[in-house]
Amino acid sequence: MQTELFDVIIVGGGPAGSSAALYTSRAAQKTLVIDKDPHAGALGMAHSIANYPGVPDALTGMELLGLMKRQAVSFGAIYRNDKVTAIDPDGPEKTVFTVSGNAFRAKTLILATGAMGKSSEIPGEKKLVGKGVSYCATCDAAFYRGRAVAVYGKNREAVEEALVLSRFASTVMLLCPGGKLAVPEEEAELLHRAENVEIRYHSRVLSVNGEMGVESLSLEGAVDPLAVEGFFIYLSGSAPVLDFIGGRLEISSCGCLKVDREFMTSSPGVFAAGDMLCKEIKQAVIVAGEGCQAALYAGKYLRGTTIHRADYH
Amino acid sequence: MQTELFDVIIVGGGPAGSSAALYTSRAAQKTLVIDKDPHAGALGMAHSIANYPGVPDALTGMELLGLMKRQAVSFGAIYRNDKVTAIDPDGPEKTVFTVSGNAFRAKTLILATGAMGKSSEIPGEKKLVGKGVSYCATCDAAFYRGRAVAVYGKNREAVEEALVLSRFASTVMLLCPGGKLAVPEEEAELLHRAENVEIRYHSRVLSVNGEMGVESLSLEGAVDPLAVEGFFIYLSGSAPVLDFIGGRLEISSCGCLKVDREFMTSSPGVFAAGDMLCKEIKQAVIVAGEGCQAALYAGKYLRGTTIHRADYH
Repeated sequence: MQTELFDVIIVGGGPAGSSAALYTSRAAQKTLVIDKDPHAGALGMAHSIANYPGVPDALTGMELLGLMKRQAVSFGAIYRNDKVTAIDPDGPEKTVFTVSGNAFRAKTLILATGAMGKSSEIPGEKKLVGKGVSYCATCDAAFYRGRAVAVYGKNREAVEEALVLSRFASTVMLLCPGGKLAVPEEEAELLHRAENVEIRYHSRVLSVNGEMGVESLSLEGAVDPLAVEGFFIYLSGSAPVLDFIGGRLEISSCGCLKVDREFMTSSPGVFAAGDMLCKEIKQAVIVAGEGCQAALYAGKYLRGTTIHRADYH
Repeated sequence: MQTELFDVIIVGGGPAGSSAALYTSRAAQKTLVIDKDPHAGALGMAHSIANYPGVPDALTGMELLGLMKRQAVSFGAIYRNDKVTAIDPDGPEKTVFTVSGNAFRAKTLILATGAMGKSSEIPGEKKLVGKGVSYCATCDAAFYRGRAVAVYGKNREAVEEALVLSRFASTVMLLCPGGKLAVPEEEAELLHRAENVEIRYHSRVLSVNGEMGVESLSLEGAVDPLAVEGFFIYLSGSAPVLDFIGGRLEISSCGCLKVDREFMTSSPGVFAAGDMLCKEIKQAVIVAGEGCQAALYAGKYLRGTTIHRADYH
């Protein structure tokens, strides 16, 4: 039995996927969005979004996603709660296979499954996400004006974010798991120059403590817990969600999906946007902009006016 | 007399500039936005925005810009109504000169003056902008479902937008000023295949007629006016606003400002975002995403953690 043929199937309903869905459906292209779980992504988990341009009241990530989804649905996009397990990206009709045992067909695909952090699973971390535990100082630093915070990690992101926090927090304790930061000397030097940043080497956080918000951290080998109101974790970087691609599309050496200037992957008619692509800065408005572009280039492809260029970036 | 030194001066208060201002001010960087005229830009002139992700009710462009500006101001950004006439982008302190005779200093600049269309100045055009006259089918096509529209132009954009409109409008009359479209054969062929698109060569529009909305076009050599409810004009492309740069920054061969992957121009500490950069697709959410990136890279530069790379795109 043949299922209906969509113009576009979008895999992922985060800010990139929903922005793409808004543009494809508004362009009168038959659009199906397959979303594993709206709570699963980085934006879905965000407690309060104060920095999305044009949305002035602090919303939760889920509320902002809800607004985007409602727009896309108002233009005709269909959302389906399901998990994509594999794709066949070749030829003029692409197929998407899901865990529910269905196969959906479309002339174009837009992949937008984002990136997932490997959970560091510190006791208390999960309970206090959005209540003092954060993974993005660029997003949340302004909430910690005059308060004591800790940053946990040793990579470049941890160092950058400690510097961002130092402009707001009363004190920033950088808890480095090893004996040395994994950044160049000059950058470590900037931390030493910041008056309210202190680095504690060989630190291991045993638990995040607090009920309604973060109150303290228990550190290995320390008798007294460290009193902080914010705890920013950068133990392990996040990695693009590519498990369903099964080697069918080109991946860059840094482990993200390769696209050309028109957001097209190595398979003609298959586009991608958002945190599946290599990026240093993760912000909802950036990936919403990418979703818009992937959608409009998919539209061009559907109209037959794309001239495929092989200049990947 | 030395004026105060800002962390960031942003030139231009459109979606790219205001998004940048939101991010720099929220990062506690002292921010001045110099805006010539909020009504001057492409978004400021837009009648109804239905496709900005996260802003569900159709707002005017000015209302959306107002929301972004209010956010930036709430985080501490200062807006000043003035026109920048020249910049000195070199050294650790950059200077911005304005028509009011002032000079403002900052450690970094973010340029976001956008692009301006050369006005085609058809009688009636100005009066009916947003009331049937449009410059963006991708934005407005959905308002013309089942209606007759005309597209005026011969370039690639005119052809692409006629195809976008053909999915909505009852008929699309493509009015080509010359005897031939300036696109490859294959693309012109797509127009011929679209059943509701008609091309009329050697067309010259003498006036756009109507009071509350577009009713018809008067064409040279035709007795009866052509009845249409929408008129999409692509006579002349828009060009980046670069007049105040005075050759102090590198410009690409296509006439837009060159930036590297971190949105930095050829002068260290001077960043740019939005329609001053080369782009095929002009949408508010795309330039808002660029403004966010320029702001966060300017923050990195201010913290001293930028490693300058010379890979322009």
